[in-house]
Amino acid sequence: MHAKTFWSAMLLLGSAMVVHTQTPAKPKEAKTIAAIRAVLDAQRDAWNRGDIEGYMDGYERSEQTVFVSGDNLTRGWQTVLDRYKKNYNTREKMGTLTFSDLEITLPGKESAVVLGRWHLKRVGDEPHGRFTLIFKKTKQGWKIIHDHTSSA
Amino acid sequence: MHAKTFWSAMLLLGSAMVVHTQTPAKPKEAKTIAAIRAVLDAQRDAWNRGDIEGYMDGYERSEQTVFVSGDNLTRGWQTVLDRYKKNYNTREKMGTLTFSDLEITLPGKESAVVLGRWHLKRVGDEPHGRFTLIFKKTKQGWKIIHDHTSSA
Repeated sequence: MHAKTFWSAMLLLGSAMVVHTQTPAKPKEAKTIAAIRAVLDAQRDAWNRGDIEGYMDGYERSEQTVFVSGDNLTRGWQTVLDRYKKNYNTREKMGTLTFSDLEITLPGKESAVVLGRWHLKRVGDEPHGRFTLIFKKTKQGWKIIHDHTSSA
Repeated sequence: MHAKTFWSAMLLLGSAMVVHTQTPAKPKEAKTIAAIRAVLDAQRDAWNRGDIEGYMDGYERSEQTVFVSGDNLTRGWQTVLDRYKKNYNTREKMGTLTFSDLEITLPGKESAVVLGRWHLKRVGDEPHGRFTLIFKKTKQGWKIIHDHTSSA
């Protein structure tokens, strides 16, 4: 990777993210990575203002969208939205969400994989763990189609 | 999907697997899915004969290969092989591994996502959970580049 390209990408992406691509980052790949980063930023911001629907906008609005956590599998955007609204019905329960150690890989032109850490700061506890997200390029932009989250 | 194509795919794949593709399965996609299924079968068989290297052959031999479990991230094929050899140094500890509820999706031509359940039957316990695997088409065939496993 040329130094100039590297630093341009860094400026775009911010210092918190490590970029892993199989080949040197091309402008189009940098654009994809920035778009995905923007989705994650928007999710975090939505969550932290108590906007669960805004958070869920990062996911594809499909019955096929998959959420895995521990030994549990939940399928479907609406199902997950309903569950979030039920389980996080106060700002206290939602707490403050941060993502860190983000790594975005692009195995192909139409999909991306994001590995990262999540951390929820609340009054009573601080749950945290790792996630793997699979993004797909849709007509509505890059959306998560598969979320596998695990906890410490 | 035409009924004939569907049943041809089922014959190839076995009854335990649900096939999810964004578009009707084409012959090439069915071939990819069968190839990935063969990798998983080979991993299971290797594990169940006490062959950890054989099991690890399903993963890309790269320092970038990623293993996520709970809050732990491990990177690198060799690192994971060494850890498996240390932690599963007897047949009793390895137990009998089965995979079930496999769903293979093909977000692009060069990558695939496998969602499934794992179950380890041992004398003293039966750990189990879910996994998300990201496969990439390599010169050595379809290999796992990213494994996110969670437990019940």
